[in-house]
Amino acid sequence: PMEALNTAQGARDFIYSLHSTERSCLLKELHRFESIAIAQEKLEAPPPTPGQLRYVFIHNAIPFIGFGFLDNAIMIVAGTHIEMSIGIILGISTMAAAALGNLVSDLAGLGLAGYVEALASRLGLSIPDLTPKQVDMWQTRLSTHLGKAVGVTIGCILGMFPLIFFGGGEEDEKLETKS
Amino acid sequence: PMEALNTAQGARDFIYSLHSTERSCLLKELHRFESIAIAQEKLEAPPPTPGQLRYVFIHNAIPFIGFGFLDNAIMIVAGTHIEMSIGIILGISTMAAAALGNLVSDLAGLGLAGYVEALASRLGLSIPDLTPKQVDMWQTRLSTHLGKAVGVTIGCILGMFPLIFFGGGEEDEKLETKS
Repeated sequence: PMEALNTAQGARDFIYSLHSTERSCLLKELHRFESIAIAQEKLEAPPPTPGQLRYVFIHNAIPFIGFGFLDNAIMIVAGTHIEMSIGIILGISTMAAAALGNLVSDLAGLGLAGYVEALASRLGLSIPDLTPKQVDMWQTRLSTHLGKAVGVTIGCILGMFPLIFFGGGEEDEKLETKS
Repeated sequence: PMEALNTAQGARDFIYSLHSTERSCLLKELHRFESIAIAQEKLEAPPPTPGQLRYVFIHNAIPFIGFGFLDNAIMIVAGTHIEMSIGIILGISTMAAAALGNLVSDLAGLGLAGYVEALASRLGLSIPDLTPKQVDMWQTRLSTHLGKAVGVTIGCILGMFPLIFFGGGEEDEKLETKS
């Protein structure tokens, strides 16, 4: 989320952005999680097993494959269309057209935010069953961040597929139209 | 957030991604918000004033100016460097180099996620004081989304400044190296 949740203001900011169903669901689950955490406070918790960590890795990668794929595919398609239309009139470079395509992709990201998640949670595996203590362990954090990084890398590379259709040709095309 | 918070699984997923300080802060604020919401359930709430809506608009725009700026600036700088290095060896198009730059920018976004927020909340205005009912009104939702869209647009355009240094020249340079 965009808000820093460890401040009252950031937390309130975030709560404002939620719908009432999300707020009540989040409140119920937070209650559950914190009461388990308190109940197990005294217990020693073994670190997550390698199997659990792989699960956490994959669980976090899947939504980010979707995000990276859409982010890059939209950027390339929009950027190439901009280049071939107003790009020629304004004589802007391919990189400038790509930057405008990136704006289109960010705007789409704002609109799509809800859907990629919903899709991912249905596609994705159910959440790993870890105790509150295990959730906070560095192994779990590392698997989570690595999963997201690998997921967005796979997604971005897959999202380059429109280049096959556009190929490198658009630069030659542009030169023909210019000369 | 990436998780769909209106499902138990999505909410739990999101809770797993939080640190313990964030969880306790969020729980406290959610409690506060929901108790006010229940207390005021019977009361009629006037819609937010235009001044409040402008405030909501600006409050949501500021962090996204930062996000859009970084997203585009990193994409352009990384994309241009990729183009001028492995791009020439592999003979990939500028758009392909931009797509790889976008991957770098997404990875940086994963890493920077916490900092842009923290910076924005310090820079940003304090949160608008709306009643729970006003938060859920369509006027507030519209101002929130418009603020984010306008913010990311301003940010992305400002983030194109590296092009001034790179200019369109890199295409001509590439042609020289190719011929």
